[in-house]
Amino acid sequence: MRRIKLTLSYDGTDYYGFQRQKDKPSVQGRLEEALLKITKEEVQTNGASRIDRGAHAEAQVVTFSTDSKMTPEEIRMALNSVLPKDIVVLEATEVSLDFNPRHAKERVYRYTILNQEKKSVFLRRYSYFYPYSLNIRKMQEASRFIIGRHDFSPFSAQGAWRNPYREIKEIKIKRRLGEHKERLILFDITGDSFLPKMIRTIMGGILEVGRLKKDVLYLKEILSKRAEKPFIVPALGLSLSEVRY
Amino acid sequence: MRRIKLTLSYDGTDYYGFQRQKDKPSVQGRLEEALLKITKEEVQTNGASRIDRGAHAEAQVVTFSTDSKMTPEEIRMALNSVLPKDIVVLEATEVSLDFNPRHAKERVYRYTILNQEKKSVFLRRYSYFYPYSLNIRKMQEASRFIIGRHDFSPFSAQGAWRNPYREIKEIKIKRRLGEHKERLILFDITGDSFLPKMIRTIMGGILEVGRLKKDVLYLKEILSKRAEKPFIVPALGLSLSEVRY
Repeated sequence: MRRIKLTLSYDGTDYYGFQRQKDKPSVQGRLEEALLKITKEEVQTNGASRIDRGAHAEAQVVTFSTDSKMTPEEIRMALNSVLPKDIVVLEATEVSLDFNPRHAKERVYRYTILNQEKKSVFLRRYSYFYPYSLNIRKMQEASRFIIGRHDFSPFSAQGAWRNPYREIKEIKIKRRLGEHKERLILFDITGDSFLPKMIRTIMGGILEVGRLKKDVLYLKEILSKRAEKPFIVPALGLSLSEVRY
Repeated sequence: MRRIKLTLSYDGTDYYGFQRQKDKPSVQGRLEEALLKITKEEVQTNGASRIDRGAHAEAQVVTFSTDSKMTPEEIRMALNSVLPKDIVVLEATEVSLDFNPRHAKERVYRYTILNQEKKSVFLRRYSYFYPYSLNIRKMQEASRFIIGRHDFSPFSAQGAWRNPYREIKEIKIKRRLGEHKERLILFDITGDSFLPKMIRTIMGGILEVGRLKKDVLYLKEILSKRAEKPFIVPALGLSLSEVRY
């Protein structure tokens, strides 16, 4: 028995999230079907991150155990030949049997905003169209108040977490021109791990500050439960960029 | 009767090209259906460029005549509310009744190469995956030999053109990192107009030089019919960037 670690990139638009779903297409479901085809084994996979429906991954980490004799590179190539076009295995390596993909040190997510008057057909699946004027400096300032280890349950969808403490290590915000000169704002958020909907709720708060609807203390006030939760940005702008061990 | 000029951006992946087709989805077909819905008129549209099946547009120019009383901006917004998500009207203005979109001074096309070892799910619809090492300087040098007005029929799909002379004004080639750090090479080709398949055939030739399979005189030799035609790159990497009048 060996354990294989895959690094997976996918376009989540046409899936009901990463996690296996009964009767609904999921990335994990497609991956396990592909593994059945190439190994003839009913393989159970484990992902590093639970990724929202409609969100994407540049580099999700997934492991599984197998008796197959194929090399990791053979597995990678065989998977890519049977997986749909919106899922690609970037890397496959053998890891020790006790490697657990959930035990990551850091996860980096990116949120992409299309910040211009006109929509873009090329980025419509991968960015949130937000045509309002945004103050980058104020968003950077506001986001600094939630760096560190905090009880992030005020930023989460549900309430009852065994451990609601999470550490946000860095939030980088920058403007960038897309390939077709689209005006983008990229938000790179690094943390140890994240509660459900946490990033999308933080993003909603940051955008409220950027539009000058809230002041730079807004995120801090939500954290200490002195302010109401902001809106939750849609999943399509979200992508898991990296998982670090 | 007024004439309206639209600037259209679209993702051509799911269409059989720009031009109206019997029983097959085309961008022009979708646009005319949308115009029928909002103006109640059976409108005939004309496009500046015939764009290959599977290729895209950042800014195709399309005109039509109408008796509608809507302002151009009302037409733009109404069209965007009924068009599918992969077609967006960026601009609508009124032009004189004798404005013909085909009488453009210059057209700019971009061809995008994904030049790295691994595929990208995010760019799979908009770039040609070409994982080979490419020499940019040699490609630039080679492309200089076809700048100017020439009989470009050796670079075209078919043979019998009334006037096979076309002018290429500029070919710019540059590396660029994509939003997810994808290694891209962008080719921006400006000309007065282009014969069918001409750009995709020129691109095939440039890539052969970039891989060092042919020397820098290759394009010149094709032009003077002393060399065989190169391969034709796929349409998915091609996009009409701009039409100038």
